[in-house]
Formats: sequence, structure tokens, C-alpha cells
Amino acid sequence: MIKILVDAMGGDNAPAATVEGCVIALGKDKDLSLVLTGRKQEIEKELSKYKYDAARLEIVDCPDVIDMNDIPTEAVKRRQSSLVVAYHLLKQNEDICGLVTAGSTGAAIVGGQLILGRIRGIKRPALCPAIPNSRGGMTLLCDCGANAECKPVMLCQFALLAAAYAEVGFGIKNPKVGLLSNGTEEHKGDPLHQETYKYLSQMQGIDFIGNIEGRDIMCGGCDVAVADGFSGNIALKSMEGCGKLVLGVMKKEFSATLSSKIGYLFMRKAIKRMRGQLDFDKYGGALLLGLKKVVVKSHGSSKPQTIAASVANAAAIYRGGLVPAVEKKLEGVDFSSLIPEQ
Amino acid sequence: MIKILVDAMGGDNAPAATVEGCVIALGKDKDLSLVLTGRKQEIEKELSKYKYDAARLEIVDCPDVIDMNDIPTEAVKRRQSSLVVAYHLLKQNEDICGLVTAGSTGAAIVGGQLILGRIRGIKRPALCPAIPNSRGGMTLLCDCGANAECKPVMLCQFALLAAAYAEVGFGIKNPKVGLLSNGTEEHKGDPLHQETYKYLSQMQGIDFIGNIEGRDIMCGGCDVAVADGFSGNIALKSMEGCGKLVLGVMKKEFSATLSSKIGYLFMRKAIKRMRGQLDFDKYGGALLLGLKKVVVKSHGSSKPQTIAASVANAAAIYRGGLVPAVEKKLEGVDFSSLIPEQ
Repeated sequence: MIKILVDAMGGDNAPAATVEGCVIALGKDKDLSLVLTGRKQEIEKELSKYKYDAARLEIVDCPDVIDMNDIPTEAVKRRQSSLVVAYHLLKQNEDICGLVTAGSTGAAIVGGQLILGRIRGIKRPALCPAIPNSRGGMTLLCDCGANAECKPVMLCQFALLAAAYAEVGFGIKNPKVGLLSNGTEEHKGDPLHQETYKYLSQMQGIDFIGNIEGRDIMCGGCDVAVADGFSGNIALKSMEGCGKLVLGVMKKEFSATLSSKIGYLFMRKAIKRMRGQLDFDKYGGALLLGLKKVVVKSHGSSKPQTIAASVANAAAIYRGGLVPAVEKKLEGVDFSSLIPEQ
Repeated sequence: MIKILVDAMGGDNAPAATVEGCVIALGKDKDLSLVLTGRKQEIEKELSKYKYDAARLEIVDCPDVIDMNDIPTEAVKRRQSSLVVAYHLLKQNEDICGLVTAGSTGAAIVGGQLILGRIRGIKRPALCPAIPNSRGGMTLLCDCGANAECKPVMLCQFALLAAAYAEVGFGIKNPKVGLLSNGTEEHKGDPLHQETYKYLSQMQGIDFIGNIEGRDIMCGGCDVAVADGFSGNIALKSMEGCGKLVLGVMKKEFSATLSSKIGYLFMRKAIKRMRGQLDFDKYGGALLLGLKKVVVKSHGSSKPQTIAASVANAAAIYRGGLVPAVEKKLEGVDFSSLIPEQ
């Protein structure tokens, strides 16, 4: 039995969507049990709508909820909030394997660092979503927002963390790692990226293919795109914006004339498959890499299916052995001799 | 009569595509004359395929061609190359209004700075493409690659340059200017962007709406997205990659089954309109802002229609009075008192 925590109050549609997502997840995985943190009464009210295996669902009552607008460093001091209680439970209980939250990204990152703690040797945790690519697979973009300011050692560690995730989460052997820059040539980028290029080239345990450009995240040959959190975040949201525009234009055009409406009837399935392939949330949120246990940050606007996917993702990654895989990779690299100034 | 230079040898499909593009442009604008720089024999061979008004087309023979792989600072020393000759002609001849090149971006930027020169008071030129947005208009992204390293004063000037372009090129009164960051809150970003936010808030002559995220370039409310060249380039190419993936998936899905093939027949027009709306090259390339004259950098893979659009764009922007508009805006801002350290 694998036990996962869910911050039932996190996200725009909580607790309705989180609770329904948990019920779906329990139905799909008989070897899963869940601990929900949040306002017990509200959670029970939502739960009463569904049939589920009550023996595998536990509620820990927390009166407080962290808001999207709360300042993360302040928010994590609220010890009665669903997120902070979840992090303490995760830290203290050996039988709890992971945490899923659709709440404030900033609070999840700060809480992860301050309460749960980082894997020994890791400087900073990183946010790592999986982006659909033109090969029909996923490219891991790491970091995409946890660290607006980075140093070369952090970027090198993001490479290592995301490579371990690619192996464990997607079964990719020797994942190809690219450094996101403003051109493919070695000299491209600012000093941070030029320096990082040098270290990544020398680093053991990863298959570094050099600089990549923004378009290579979705259309290139790499499995991992290493980015500072500032430009990684911009890349992610730029792609999301483009996807949103395309779907909007598509919707408008496909109902613009009688002819296109008729065409739509014939193409419904193809369009549905297409939407599926372009779904940024297919794998249920972004991993918070570098922490002592598996933490999945689900999208703030998560629907029940997204929460269920995030829970399944957390379970799969725990089963795959993400944290031991990272620790093993870390053994192979001596960062202090690789990178003089950290 | 308006006279525009075209670097006939620049781009993957030169000189065939550039020459055909010039012929199209001449046909569309009777008040336009062109000067083509490049290998005269090759250009004449291409020209012989078309009918055109020879009185409005001049060729300046240049034996040398700058390659995409040449190092820009070295390339611009090649005085017999089509790009360098074009820049010297542009600088020396008052009756020549602008330049279009689909050649090396780096060489175009360095040549623009070193040969043509910047507008008085402007620190660095910036590359500024127009990106289709969900309002059916265009968002100007400035800078998207000319400057991998930026200072706050440069970002503030990019705001001013692109705002002038939005007014002159797209007829937008008081264009809304956003600063591309990793979140909308004022405190978001690295120190460069936090500092820039402060100065942009105080700056005269622009309507600053605060930080924007990557998705706001295509789906937000701003007309100008100010970016450092590093993350601006990543944003642009990430959107391009997403667009490419979508069109690829669409193509595959729409011919996957008999039903979707039938649907396609009904939807051809809608799909064509859709592609048109998502066309990054609709306005024919990116402007190199901040130089003494109008310079348009057309995409390296420009087709004849793209070259023609770039030429038309250069002419329209000259007619609109871009450089005087920038100079007027510059008069209103005292950068040295606004930004203490530059």
C-alpha cells in the first residue's frame, strides 16, 4: 500500500475538485491510500457525493487555508493550514510517500525547503513540468519558476534532478539534456549560461547535447531542457499562451461557417486526439525536484481528472524510486571540484 | 518615390526568393523603388524569369556574401559583402529610406550599430518582431535576441522604441507596455527586472501596465512586451515551437482517418484562415529598432511573399515616420536623471 497526502484545500476549485480527484485516483489504483488535509466538514460534504473505499481515505482536519495571494514566506508560518500540516506529516511519517497540492506554488516551494527539506547536497529545489513534444513524448523543463536568480551550480543540479526524473518517471535511458539559451552555439547566452555550458560539458552522469533554443522544448531532440527559473517560466507560459490562442482560434473558425460546422462533425475525434496531444496537464502537474520526498504541484486551475493524474504521477514516481535515483546520481558528481565558486 | 535596399543574397533561399519577393513588392507599390545588393549575374538570372518595372530596380554588384555561420563582428569587416555594402549605401544616401535583409541576424545587428549607427541617445539596438495575439492584433516583443545581457536603461529604451513602432506601424494610440517577467506581481523577477519595473513606472511617454507573463504576449492585454534579449528570444522561439507542433499534429490528425479527411474538405477554408491568423511572418520580419534608419530583419527561411511583406513593412514604417517618432519620445525622457547608474 502506498500512502499519498493531498492538500484538499489547494487550487481554484478546491475542495470540490480535489476531493473528486482523490475519489477517482482511489478507484484507479487499489494499492493506494490517501490522507487529505483541510477543513474536515467541507471535505466530508464533498465526499458524501461519491462512493469510495473509506478504509483507504483519511482526513486530517486543518482550519486554515493558504491563499494564492499570501506571501509564501509568511504563509508557511501558518501551522494550521492544510499545506503546512501536510508538509509536517510528510516529514514525520515514514510511511507517507508523497504530497500533491494545487495551491500556491510559492508556498509549496518555500514549505518544501523549510519544512520537508532538500536532498543532501542539493542547493535549491526546482519546479519541473513535462511538456508534450513532437516525438509524441514529453520534454522536462527544469526549472520553470522556483528560482528567478540562479548560479551555475544550481543549473547543473537541475540537469541532474530532471535527468533522474526522466529515467524514473518516463523510462528514458540516458536522457538527452539541453541548456535553454538564445541560440545553439556554445558562446550564446549571458555569462551565467556560458559558464553553465562549460560545467555541463564536463559533468558525469548526464548526456549533455549543448545549447537548445525555445522551439526545441516542443520540437527538438532533448528529453530535458535545463533553464534558469526566470526564462524557464517565460518559456513555459509562452508555450501555454500559444496553445491557448490556437485552441481559441480553432474553436472560432470551426464554427464560423456551415461548411466548417459540417467538417467539425467528421473531425470531432481527430480534434479530441489533437487536444489530448497538446494537453500540458496530461501528466498532472509539475514535480518539485530536489526535496526529500516526492512533491507534485498540480495546476491552480486543476480539475478532478488533473488531481487524479497528479496523485497517480506522485505514486508512480515514488514507486520508480526518484529520490534514491537522485542520490545515486549525486554520488557521481563532486560539485565543489567541478565548479570552483558556488 | 520611396527607395528601399534589399540584401539580395541574405537568407536560406537567396537570391531566388529575395529577387522574386522584390518583384512582388514592386508590383504592389507603384511608389516604391528598390536597390538590390549582391552578385549581379545571379540576381539578373533570377530577374529574367519575371516581368517588372526595370526603371524602379537597381542592382549594386557585390562579390561577397556573409554566411549564417560567420561570426558577426568579423563578418561586418567584409566590405564587399551584400550586407555591408547595403549598410554603407543606407548610411551615405539620404534618398534611401530603409533596408531589408533575411541574412545573418547577428551581422545585421552589428552592421547596424557599427556602420549605420544608432539614434542619438539610444544605447543599443533591439530586435522587435510582431506576434499575433488573441485580440486579432499584434503584440510587439522587444528585444528578442539582439542583447543577451541587458541593463535597466536598455529595457526602458526598448519600451520607448517599441511604443513608437506600435504607434507608427500599427496605429495604436498610447500602446500598453508590459514588462516580461516570471509573474505579474511587482516583486517578481531578478534584480534587473525588479529595477526596470521601478523605472518604467516613473517613465514619461509610455503607458506601463506592469509585469506580464509569457502567456500574455499572445493572450494578454498589452501592445508591447519589453524583454531582455535572452528571455525575449526564448519566449519567441517557444511560441514558434508550440505553433509548429500544433500545425504538425493538425496535419497528421486531419489525414488520420477517412472521417477526418472528409471533414478536412469542409474545413479547408477555416483551416487556411486559422493558419493565416497564426502566421508569425505576416508582417514580414522583425524591426531592428534604435538605428538611424528603418532596418527590417526578415526570417532566414523567408519565402518570396515574406520578403515582399518585409519590403512593404519597411516602406510603411518609413512613411509613418518611425525615426522622428522615436526622437520625439526621447526628448520627453531624461534617462540620466531617471536611472542613476547606467
